[in-house]
Amino acid sequence: MVNEIEAQAAAAVDLKSAQVGWIGTGVMGQSMAGQLIDAGCGLVVYNRSPEKAKPLVDRGAVLAGTPRDVAAQCDIIFTMVGYPSDVRQVILGGGGAVASGATAGDCSVTAGLRPGAVVIDMTTSQPSLAIEIDAAIRAAGGQSLDAPVSGGDIGAKAGTLSIMVGGDRATFDRVLPLLERMGKTIVYQGAAGAGQHTKMVNQTLVAASMIGVCEALLYAQHAGLDVTTVLKSVTSGAANSWTLSNLAPRIIAGDFAPGFYVEHFIKDMRIALDEAARMKIALPGLALVSQLYNAVAAQGHSRSGTQALMHALRSLSGGTRS
Amino acid sequence: MVNEIEAQAAAAVDLKSAQVGWIGTGVMGQSMAGQLIDAGCGLVVYNRSPEKAKPLVDRGAVLAGTPRDVAAQCDIIFTMVGYPSDVRQVILGGGGAVASGATAGDCSVTAGLRPGAVVIDMTTSQPSLAIEIDAAIRAAGGQSLDAPVSGGDIGAKAGTLSIMVGGDRATFDRVLPLLERMGKTIVYQGAAGAGQHTKMVNQTLVAASMIGVCEALLYAQHAGLDVTTVLKSVTSGAANSWTLSNLAPRIIAGDFAPGFYVEHFIKDMRIALDEAARMKIALPGLALVSQLYNAVAAQGHSRSGTQALMHALRSLSGGTRS
Repeated sequence: MVNEIEAQAAAAVDLKSAQVGWIGTGVMGQSMAGQLIDAGCGLVVYNRSPEKAKPLVDRGAVLAGTPRDVAAQCDIIFTMVGYPSDVRQVILGGGGAVASGATAGDCSVTAGLRPGAVVIDMTTSQPSLAIEIDAAIRAAGGQSLDAPVSGGDIGAKAGTLSIMVGGDRATFDRVLPLLERMGKTIVYQGAAGAGQHTKMVNQTLVAASMIGVCEALLYAQHAGLDVTTVLKSVTSGAANSWTLSNLAPRIIAGDFAPGFYVEHFIKDMRIALDEAARMKIALPGLALVSQLYNAVAAQGHSRSGTQALMHALRSLSGGTRS
Repeated sequence: MVNEIEAQAAAAVDLKSAQVGWIGTGVMGQSMAGQLIDAGCGLVVYNRSPEKAKPLVDRGAVLAGTPRDVAAQCDIIFTMVGYPSDVRQVILGGGGAVASGATAGDCSVTAGLRPGAVVIDMTTSQPSLAIEIDAAIRAAGGQSLDAPVSGGDIGAKAGTLSIMVGGDRATFDRVLPLLERMGKTIVYQGAAGAGQHTKMVNQTLVAASMIGVCEALLYAQHAGLDVTTVLKSVTSGAANSWTLSNLAPRIIAGDFAPGFYVEHFIKDMRIALDEAARMKIALPGLALVSQLYNAVAAQGHSRSGTQALMHALRSLSGGTRS
């Protein structure tokens, strides 16, 4: 009997029969959840602003009134929200996925979380919160994974995200078929929090690449070079990066549309620097870039794409130069 | 007659009949000059330490006693030396390629530079020096190009360098067959100095990528992640760079062999920051990385590869961590 239950627990999810919950249907979440509908999953969705869930409801998803209502109907629940405080609210808060008590206006006595349910947070959030959530969900009889992503709205739409996963390995194996609908590079990184830590590594790299690209373009423009011709040289060797190939042309074209929002990147860098302080390591490069992004926000560009770092560097040197 | 001369001047160099001078036969210069011997060029070589020219002499190159002696025998002269002061010496100094007077022990009255000769400096050097040299060589009846490279010893051996060229366009077209033996990405960037400026753009990008990679690895190691597994995630998307893919594995393996020497990179960053000051632009990221490389040198790693930046970051955070 025990072996049978273990075998059942270890078996990979069957996409066609899976009833999946999705909490957070913003730009990213909507595309990712859509991949699961495409795969044949039944979906129960929740969003703080319900109108943003409508495109999924129009495709057959059931709209729930609270995260807890999602959890009551599903064995696998994804969360993809904005900030760590939102993650805490939709999972641990009143009306959250693991809340067992009733909330205002909700007289159900059913526990939020089903026995053996899996909660997968795909928000970029704090490693320490991922560990706290993992403990709470285990105590409630479930399992959790932290599984933040990289690849942006384009990767979400195309199902080509990089997904960095922390938590229980057997649980990872079980839900892998779902993750494989959303991403093409899906790597198990270790225990709870390891997915979030890996995302912080990712953002540390992105931050450095971005200041390099912006300073390089500033130099090139002031030196009187043709920046497009310069890119032909510098993308061909040791100076190349994803950021250079993909975002430098946008900066040159004056295109600062997101992509990835400045305000979310500021949040990510704050998490990484908080973790660095906790681990007692100095990351002077990341700290500098973080400060310059504070300047970008101060200049009114919080909702621009991350390539708007160029604005702060230009303003330091006395303004724009085409 | 004038048209005939112009047509002759514009015609591309014939590799089999070209008599080419090569000044500076260090690690890079030796491989690059070797490509020209492979192509069938006659070579006259000079190096401050003549024994380093021996492998080329063994392959048929003629050893000259001074840069001026090289220039007296060749219509196209390449220089590939260490520092801007070396460039100035071998081109403009006593016994240099454009020196017209006799030097100690040299009673020849022949001018150093032949009429219409081309001097191509491939050293990473100052844009302002490239402009000064260009003026001096034009005054002596020749042409010059600044043509620094990226791609390191591996690119030099394989003939796959990126070559960034400034100077007269027709002269570039004329010597292109020679450059094509050494590189695969050869881009004309504009007037004298534009090649060096483009290389500074390249090094600004490399500097940022390097601090990103080192801080990311430091974070990953202190967070208890398996850094090799982390690389699987972060090389697949927006965080990727040449530096991450190529140098992070070396850092993880404890391999700090050059590649590209710390002391030469410090020189390059100093040139870029001097130019930035002259142009009145602020490059805070490059300035930070430059300071950290001063620390790398202070810790005795001037002759390590540039990935040795990891030493300075680890020392800031209290020492090594495997």
